[in-house]
Amino acid sequence: MEKEVKKLRLDIDGNQVDRPAVWWDEENKILCMIDQTKIPFDVKVHICDTFLDTAQAIKNMIIRGAPSIGAAAAFGLAQAVSEFWNNENFNHNIRSAYEILLSTRPTAVDLKHGLEYIIKTVPLTPENALNQAKRFSKDIAEEGKKIGEIGQNLIKSDMNLLTHCHTGALALVDNGSALAPIIQAWIVNKKRFHVYVDETRPRIQGRITSWELDQYGIDHTVICDSVSGSLMSQRKVDLIIVGADRVAQNGDIANKIGTYNLAVIAHYHNIPFYTAFPRSTFDPTIKTGEDILIEERNQLEVKEIKGYSREYQRQLSISPYSDKTKFFNPSFDVTPHSLIKGYITPEGILEAFELAKKLE
Amino acid sequence: MEKEVKKLRLDIDGNQVDRPAVWWDEENKILCMIDQTKIPFDVKVHICDTFLDTAQAIKNMIIRGAPSIGAAAAFGLAQAVSEFWNNENFNHNIRSAYEILLSTRPTAVDLKHGLEYIIKTVPLTPENALNQAKRFSKDIAEEGKKIGEIGQNLIKSDMNLLTHCHTGALALVDNGSALAPIIQAWIVNKKRFHVYVDETRPRIQGRITSWELDQYGIDHTVICDSVSGSLMSQRKVDLIIVGADRVAQNGDIANKIGTYNLAVIAHYHNIPFYTAFPRSTFDPTIKTGEDILIEERNQLEVKEIKGYSREYQRQLSISPYSDKTKFFNPSFDVTPHSLIKGYITPEGILEAFELAKKLE
Repeated sequence: MEKEVKKLRLDIDGNQVDRPAVWWDEENKILCMIDQTKIPFDVKVHICDTFLDTAQAIKNMIIRGAPSIGAAAAFGLAQAVSEFWNNENFNHNIRSAYEILLSTRPTAVDLKHGLEYIIKTVPLTPENALNQAKRFSKDIAEEGKKIGEIGQNLIKSDMNLLTHCHTGALALVDNGSALAPIIQAWIVNKKRFHVYVDETRPRIQGRITSWELDQYGIDHTVICDSVSGSLMSQRKVDLIIVGADRVAQNGDIANKIGTYNLAVIAHYHNIPFYTAFPRSTFDPTIKTGEDILIEERNQLEVKEIKGYSREYQRQLSISPYSDKTKFFNPSFDVTPHSLIKGYITPEGILEAFELAKKLE
Repeated sequence: MEKEVKKLRLDIDGNQVDRPAVWWDEENKILCMIDQTKIPFDVKVHICDTFLDTAQAIKNMIIRGAPSIGAAAAFGLAQAVSEFWNNENFNHNIRSAYEILLSTRPTAVDLKHGLEYIIKTVPLTPENALNQAKRFSKDIAEEGKKIGEIGQNLIKSDMNLLTHCHTGALALVDNGSALAPIIQAWIVNKKRFHVYVDETRPRIQGRITSWELDQYGIDHTVICDSVSGSLMSQRKVDLIIVGADRVAQNGDIANKIGTYNLAVIAHYHNIPFYTAFPRSTFDPTIKTGEDILIEERNQLEVKEIKGYSREYQRQLSISPYSDKTKFFNPSFDVTPHSLIKGYITPEGILEAFELAKKLE
């Protein structure tokens, strides 16, 4: 019997390797990440030579998932420390780099926490900053492991689960948040169940979830986001687990757009709705979800869909719309704590009132 | 001041013409319909020479919208009467044609009503059948007009409306069901409001709604289906109007997948939720929504997205998924009458208990 979840084995340019979502290449002194925009068609390593490369990669969602972008931002600021070292405007430049990295994705608080972790390093030298980034990244991955072990208790054989967006290893440096209990339950605890995977428009992160579940042979079916209500009304969903991008002091969460829809419908049907996240996603400075800034992304994400054309054997974008159509594209929504049954964290499955005490 | 809603002016091959969704070409003795799969990129007339062509066009959603496919099926059966006229197995063949046409889309009851309307013609001659099909089609279009006039009373200036799928002229031969009140309120009653248009995965009928609203200059914004909850929680939706594909005796409705999600969330937020439909959509033989057969369509609709590539200047399909991914693709869901505030029909805005008396 397997005691541990095996790491994702990625086939990168024909080599089977074991890689987290983001890592530091010691030899070449570059930041590496799996390019999540190309999955499932290509598993490619994206290289960031400079902190600006890293900022760009976060903004363009080459790397995504709140904890993974937190780790990437920490490495990005460490890169900036190295780039501006011995520069006479060092402090000013580091503050600018901090602001640039912070502005890439406004909703995920992990990003801010990653940057804070680096900027508080004393003394702030290139070596110390890099070591801190590695530690921040490693801690998140370790927390993902705990989330998996703790959260798997909620899963029983023969259940139908439902998840939204992508919350696996690539979203949390390694191991995952909402997917971690699912993978743990299947691989280590040998439970056998079925997972409905929301396609998650507009960026269709369901493709990454499906790809990651496939690596472990976990039985799943992809659905359009609008199918969830029908499934719940027919009692075909027993448990919903999603991730989070920011958790307010009172337990309200910001998460991928569509999470709130799921939570309301689950509430109506009395289906348990959980969120899973590491410490870096908790934001004790924000009282309620109303204070969370919701990122609005480019209209093109709704207008155009990226994918793979068999005809042309390559990735391209198509649109089902004429050029004058207007779109509104909020990337997240807020789900109040009243709709959340429990919070799967490295400190246990908590209730809203316990979050501040246990996670701060 | 305009007294009437102008018909859709379609630019077909460079000519500005006024066409319903489906019509009989007297001169060439062929059934014509606007090919809804190509909108908004092309407005093309699709021609059905035989009843089998018509069956295929309904199945492949060249024509869609429950009332429009009811009309198309009526014309299809009239075509069959003409094709099999003087054939010694006339009655048998007509019964087969009936069954073939009926099987093309199982959920919309309009289809069955269109076929029944033709098969009950006495005597069942080619001329009589065709005249009956024209009458069935014309009656639906007239009902759409009434739905518009009656339903517009619900709309006030400065409201934000939300609609799902496409329910305009092309879905109801002419005039529309859920879109009819919106167009009437804007054009005739000069109310000024804003419409959120659900993209409506997987077939993205939001593109047709957006295109049709554009013809009238009605202010609207397309959103992913998962955005609705967030908008409602922020009180950015004042009124929801959807169509229907089948209405049971007790007022439960089958409609495009995702309708139920909207209804539950609207209920949670106390936002009025209406459905609009002509008589042909009411099915007094079915007691509740539980007895409605829900069509499950090909997985490819979820896996592949059809659209237009600027790069290749033409329509094509792309997929964001690898070839081994499994999908579940129900085309409709059922919304119980308890979540529906009112039924916009040619007989007025009804409550569930009035439907049988007023529409039978």
